[in-house]
Amino acid sequence: LLSWRFMRDVNVGIVGLGNVGSGSLTILTANSGEIARKLGFRLNVRGLCSRTIRTKSLPAGVGEVFTTTDWFELVTHPDIDIVAELVGGTTVAHQVVDEAIRHGKSVVTANKELMADCGLEIWSAASQAGVHLAFEASVCGGIPIHHVLRDGIAADRIQTLFGILNGTCNYILTEIERRQAKFDDVLREAQALGYAEADPTADVEGYDARSKLALLATLAFGQRTRVADIYTEGIRRISPEDFEYAAQLGYTIRLLCGARRSADGIRVSVRPALIPKDAILASVHGGYNAVWVRGAHGQDTFYYGKGAGPEPTGVAVVSDMMRLARDVRERRCQLSSPFAYQTLEPARILPIEDERKPWFLRFRVKDRPGIIAALATTLAEWAVSVDAVLQLPAKDKQNLPFVITVEAAPEHAIRAAVRKMGDYDFMADAPLALPMETGV
Amino acid sequence: LLSWRFMRDVNVGIVGLGNVGSGSLTILTANSGEIARKLGFRLNVRGLCSRTIRTKSLPAGVGEVFTTTDWFELVTHPDIDIVAELVGGTTVAHQVVDEAIRHGKSVVTANKELMADCGLEIWSAASQAGVHLAFEASVCGGIPIHHVLRDGIAADRIQTLFGILNGTCNYILTEIERRQAKFDDVLREAQALGYAEADPTADVEGYDARSKLALLATLAFGQRTRVADIYTEGIRRISPEDFEYAAQLGYTIRLLCGARRSADGIRVSVRPALIPKDAILASVHGGYNAVWVRGAHGQDTFYYGKGAGPEPTGVAVVSDMMRLARDVRERRCQLSSPFAYQTLEPARILPIEDERKPWFLRFRVKDRPGIIAALATTLAEWAVSVDAVLQLPAKDKQNLPFVITVEAAPEHAIRAAVRKMGDYDFMADAPLALPMETGV
Repeated sequence: LLSWRFMRDVNVGIVGLGNVGSGSLTILTANSGEIARKLGFRLNVRGLCSRTIRTKSLPAGVGEVFTTTDWFELVTHPDIDIVAELVGGTTVAHQVVDEAIRHGKSVVTANKELMADCGLEIWSAASQAGVHLAFEASVCGGIPIHHVLRDGIAADRIQTLFGILNGTCNYILTEIERRQAKFDDVLREAQALGYAEADPTADVEGYDARSKLALLATLAFGQRTRVADIYTEGIRRISPEDFEYAAQLGYTIRLLCGARRSADGIRVSVRPALIPKDAILASVHGGYNAVWVRGAHGQDTFYYGKGAGPEPTGVAVVSDMMRLARDVRERRCQLSSPFAYQTLEPARILPIEDERKPWFLRFRVKDRPGIIAALATTLAEWAVSVDAVLQLPAKDKQNLPFVITVEAAPEHAIRAAVRKMGDYDFMADAPLALPMETGV
Repeated sequence: LLSWRFMRDVNVGIVGLGNVGSGSLTILTANSGEIARKLGFRLNVRGLCSRTIRTKSLPAGVGEVFTTTDWFELVTHPDIDIVAELVGGTTVAHQVVDEAIRHGKSVVTANKELMADCGLEIWSAASQAGVHLAFEASVCGGIPIHHVLRDGIAADRIQTLFGILNGTCNYILTEIERRQAKFDDVLREAQALGYAEADPTADVEGYDARSKLALLATLAFGQRTRVADIYTEGIRRISPEDFEYAAQLGYTIRLLCGARRSADGIRVSVRPALIPKDAILASVHGGYNAVWVRGAHGQDTFYYGKGAGPEPTGVAVVSDMMRLARDVRERRCQLSSPFAYQTLEPARILPIEDERKPWFLRFRVKDRPGIIAALATTLAEWAVSVDAVLQLPAKDKQNLPFVITVEAAPEHAIRAAVRKMGDYDFMADAPLALPMETGV
């Protein structure tokens, strides 16, 4: 028995051969020699399932593999040890994962929505069935951030995590900045180039980043964070002028995913924010993702890589398979939690409205005397102190952009003041309030 | 038996309570609750050994611990499962590790010299004894780069790795840049601040970085790379003018550790080099470390954090303990290699002299007509094409710095040309040749 355990290779099956599925398959075949040399045994592709499997050309060297259009056949196949669910969505994907677990297969998935919504229940089913679960690929394709949080810096007590978790938004924002282009124009181009989807809502409204942040916060703090807990704001209102004003202050703008822990609980948000130009997060351009972590002991660390793409995400899928393959062969008694903590607590979510930060308030007004006085008076009503007033030369006096920055103030005061300021008849547009994150 | 395995906590012993030892002990006590919640069992500090243990005040909450001045007592103590060797040096440290392994203890070490020199032999002894070995803390204190290479991006085939692996050199270089200060002055200040040692040789000559690169190259490529394989050049000759000229070209200068794999073998070097200002490695300032990796599949990823310090390095030590503690409880059959590959090949080291790169050549001359013509003629003799000649205003005509950049040329041609150019009687100082790394 012992020698059989030593000798035995591990077989994987892939359900779904879209971008991530084909990327994973490419790596499993092209890099099979290195993978075997790292593991000390082989990781074989044994089964492939896709609705369009008949039309797919499989890579050379894929070996002895069965193909099917029926996922149930794959997840119940006796030769398969590990199932990769790479279907996407939350309906069929959920069934695939559940049935795979029920049939004693360990599961790798790249599915952020599924894991953010039902990950804990799936992990509970997996641990009752004695099978392993991993989902590195669900967040920041090419960055091994799950491995880092679970193992690499496991000994640290994480206090703050900031991420740039959506490559589409980061591409759009850095293009607006680089070319002083308008949001709508850049979005259209991004769609034409395939960087943004036909329906861009999930990306530009921050929903995609929110699912990822829910998972990262859960792993970082051991508190189950749900998407509904996360204050979320998209990037549609960011304009080239905002970058110009931010630059004057030594800042840039990113869709910033933040998770902070205090003694009382955690605060989580996805929103466009100003970050200092010399912060390392500000060097994240285009379709890259990054995560910045501050721990009580290890201080700050930073992780950066491709946010998506078949092969970067495939590296995450196949690296998960490798780790699980070791565990499958060893028949571990204690399954190690994919959420970094063996037991999760319910999240104690604190309102972000109480946090004190400096703010960047951008207005578009129909110019006339007394505007600054009116706005400053309103801010004073909520005890908010003005830090600076910035106005770049502009032609259109009926739609004049300018910026007021204010000293650290609680968000509820800013929101109330902005609500009142929006009612002034000189406003050409609702004011835009962005927090200034000085601590990244 | 099964329930005993589930219930059992894991006991660690620490040999050496200097910076890293005390940092690790702080984390093990201050963060013990989180660590237990992550593991599902407790990681107890059971024994502490230090020559000066009598004078140490132990942190509150350290629990039931025995102290000793005799490392042999600790590594042979029947209660201890994992020994952390944090003595440093290669004499006693080697004995501690050998005896711990011989007595069936798993070992965590932060010792880069020991692991770079004898790591493979130690791992071989450990695997014969059926115990685990880990040395995350030996490279880039706060950055979990071992975990990343072993597990996080294990599925990738790494092609290139660039690192900033010595915090002292990085501090000195970025201070020279920031303040236009001289190397000797910055070094003296760094020594006064405790950032550099009284004898700075190991840092400023690149030897410390070289040990770290030997380990990283071994993990990245699965080829055993030794310090003697690595071309090494220190930073003593870098001057403020070099940064000024580099900035004119859109570059900065770092002590760059490089490891590149081709079909025929690997090339490894530690040397000051020009890197583009907009490369993410250029955003690494002060005492930080960073590693940039390019894989065949995952493309580029980047990892950044504190290079040293008691607690950042302690996070690496204790995270290693946590991983090993899981494996110790499970009594794994196949020990997983700390070198990322279960089997290492001997390194096929290729000469760096064959690599073609653009170069930055800085001269200090006694000014007179015909100098540029003489140098250009010499370069032409070795078929090296001049790209640009840069000369900033300077007062001292007897020691006039200026720069010639050349198009991509093999290093052996540059070295030969520079040797000849050094003989010209107008040279006030030996020419300085720095490669321009455009691909980071």
